[in-house]
Amino acid sequence: MCRVPQGRTDRDGCRDRRVSSQVSDWDIVELDGIKRLRRVFSVDNFAQALEFTKKVGELAEEEMHHPALLTEWGRTTVTWWTHKIKGLHRNDFIMAAKTDELYQR
Amino acid sequence: MCRVPQGRTDRDGCRDRRVSSQVSDWDIVELDGIKRLRRVFSVDNFAQALEFTKKVGELAEEEMHHPALLTEWGRTTVTWWTHKIKGLHRNDFIMAAKTDELYQR
Repeated sequence: MCRVPQGRTDRDGCRDRRVSSQVSDWDIVELDGIKRLRRVFSVDNFAQALEFTKKVGELAEEEMHHPALLTEWGRTTVTWWTHKIKGLHRNDFIMAAKTDELYQR
Repeated sequence: MCRVPQGRTDRDGCRDRRVSSQVSDWDIVELDGIKRLRRVFSVDNFAQALEFTKKVGELAEEEMHHPALLTEWGRTTVTWWTHKIKGLHRNDFIMAAKTDELYQR
């Protein structure tokens, strides 16, 4: 549970910490000067990696927010960032959490 | 047309040059000490990039030879190499040519 510190009424910081803690399997990496969220999802073979790429790609289309998806034998690497601000937005953390949900299904 | 030089009977070099010339849009890049064939395929949006990734992925499954496929908004980057020899085999050039054919359809 996230508590708002005494004397603060803004719950945004609290909500942001909750979002971050929900995507603890993700790394924050910096590529071309842009911070991004990245996680490698391990699977059993190429077909499963391609299937997971499709699922995340379809989610991306629904949400109109697009990651980089690297499909290889036995893994898909997903990277989220926000092009417009050239960095990380709260929405990227939400998309990361949704990607985790797809993986758990 | 590729001619075998006078005095040579081996046609392999000739055939290899033909294969290489057919994939002139590809770059040979070295990553982690391994030479690979790489080409960026430009498309109009994320959905088209995902669709092309699916097509190349299905080709890879049919041929039992697997590339790295990077899907991003407006492009798919395809990389072929042969894991077993940690480098490029003639089969990689053939797969590159087949990838080009999928793109042209």
